[in-house]
Amino acid sequence: MAILLSTKANAMADWRDALLECDPSLDIRLFPDAGDPAEIEAAVCWTQHDMAELRRYPNLRLIVSMGAGVDHLLRPPGPPPGIPVARLKDGRLTTGMAEWVLLNVLRFHRQDLDYRALQAARTWEELPAPETAERRVGFLGLGELGLAAARACAALGFPVQGWTRRPRAIPGIETFHGEDGLRAMLGRTDILVCLLPLTPDTRGLLNRGTLALLPRGAFLVNGARGGHLVQEDLLAALDSGHLAAAALDVFEPEPLPADHPFWAHPRVVMTPHAASITIPRSAAPQVVENLRRARAGEPLLNLVDFSAGY
Amino acid sequence: MAILLSTKANAMADWRDALLECDPSLDIRLFPDAGDPAEIEAAVCWTQHDMAELRRYPNLRLIVSMGAGVDHLLRPPGPPPGIPVARLKDGRLTTGMAEWVLLNVLRFHRQDLDYRALQAARTWEELPAPETAERRVGFLGLGELGLAAARACAALGFPVQGWTRRPRAIPGIETFHGEDGLRAMLGRTDILVCLLPLTPDTRGLLNRGTLALLPRGAFLVNGARGGHLVQEDLLAALDSGHLAAAALDVFEPEPLPADHPFWAHPRVVMTPHAASITIPRSAAPQVVENLRRARAGEPLLNLVDFSAGY
Repeated sequence: MAILLSTKANAMADWRDALLECDPSLDIRLFPDAGDPAEIEAAVCWTQHDMAELRRYPNLRLIVSMGAGVDHLLRPPGPPPGIPVARLKDGRLTTGMAEWVLLNVLRFHRQDLDYRALQAARTWEELPAPETAERRVGFLGLGELGLAAARACAALGFPVQGWTRRPRAIPGIETFHGEDGLRAMLGRTDILVCLLPLTPDTRGLLNRGTLALLPRGAFLVNGARGGHLVQEDLLAALDSGHLAAAALDVFEPEPLPADHPFWAHPRVVMTPHAASITIPRSAAPQVVENLRRARAGEPLLNLVDFSAGY
Repeated sequence: MAILLSTKANAMADWRDALLECDPSLDIRLFPDAGDPAEIEAAVCWTQHDMAELRRYPNLRLIVSMGAGVDHLLRPPGPPPGIPVARLKDGRLTTGMAEWVLLNVLRFHRQDLDYRALQAARTWEELPAPETAERRVGFLGLGELGLAAARACAALGFPVQGWTRRPRAIPGIETFHGEDGLRAMLGRTDILVCLLPLTPDTRGLLNRGTLALLPRGAFLVNGARGGHLVQEDLLAALDSGHLAAAALDVFEPEPLPADHPFWAHPRVVMTPHAASITIPRSAAPQVVENLRRARAGEPLLNLVDFSAGY
């Protein structure tokens, strides 16, 4: 029996080597060279893989997303019925995202875009410095990634709050939920960080209406999915001066077309879906463990909840 | 008896108000309007104040630096003989510096200068990502500011090491001291952060010879004093490609002249001595407390050690 790997060409070999390091007896196939479809037992896929294609493998018993997000696996047609889907929960994914969020929260908090512009103008000018204790950072989503990033911000002294689907109590973080909770939190958030899963409920959540609820001069940090954001609404909010700046790692589509206004916008800081990178060596052990569990009929780790959509 | 304040014009009123908030009975004089010199009991000064001028006040019993650094008070002619000098140790100074250091460590660690250049070129390209656990951050100086910044980096998973004047043991931080210790630490430091006091011993410590000891591709973060760095040696190390980039908050002289090559250098990130800003409201209580102690003949807080030079 074999594992089918499907990801970007430049990442295939790293994944294969990392899995073989965990278990040299594994039979790894690199898509599209799947070999005999009846031999494929598990599919480990990144965003570009077509779920319809997975219906070719009659003995598939496990699908694993190569990242924390699984929206790419759940969108129509979705995974073959009855096959469990697991995400990765990897310490490296989590710390990578926390670093990226912290970099951008500090960039905005410390007025770094303004200081870059002053440097370019050869101008020595100290800007008034808002206090850390008065810079409210609000998180949309407090899952594995959101909670780690929120705690990293709280450890630096920022007042941190978070919005979640279901009510949650988290020490040191003020929490909100539901429609009313969303409105309440946005109204008192200076730096908004989106780390939600992308589901039909959260698609387009960052739009003209919600961005307008943020105080004037607020910042947006989106490390989740491009589909959370109505991109033209962000542009309008930046250009009207309502929002001060945005840091974006995710877009729709990706890669972002070269003529998109974000590229040259002075108040948009872009990275190419690189905030949190799955390191095969770090993530491979849980793929191997989940495959062992699937074979043994034991409960799987980090299963996707289809009803919640993540 | 009165307190003489001497700082930048735009900070005078904030300092006066903050001190009066602590003790409304204080008599505050704003330099150069000192009034009767015999009435000046304490001088609270920032870098531009001439120490020779302080010899005019026969009843002076305390000098306070408005920041953590005191090199500006100790350089010739130095403070009037026999008058104690105190620095500020303020939580806001400390957290402000830790934020600035963390912003720049993360900026370099996350290849942000490269990503900014890719954005400017409208190029979607994910860069290979070095692991946090393999990015060694080395601190020159582990005083109040250095230790807080070092701990903030260690909390994010960076391997942290530090060089101090005297041998020190600090949990979670590998420490070095002396000439040999300096060479040893520099040889294994990927991001070097300078937060030393400026003394005759540390002036020019960052020079062609020491920068050459860093591994090729290392980064420099200087939040201490411009005098620690031989600025032309840094330019040479950047232009040869030996160093990858530098973040500088301090310069010699300040303001840095508008024709200096740092301003337009693509691998230099500048802030105008704004990394760690004394907040009068936060710092005033310890000035008032030290004045009370000086009047009562009690031991003063945060005294400068003249023999050490800081």
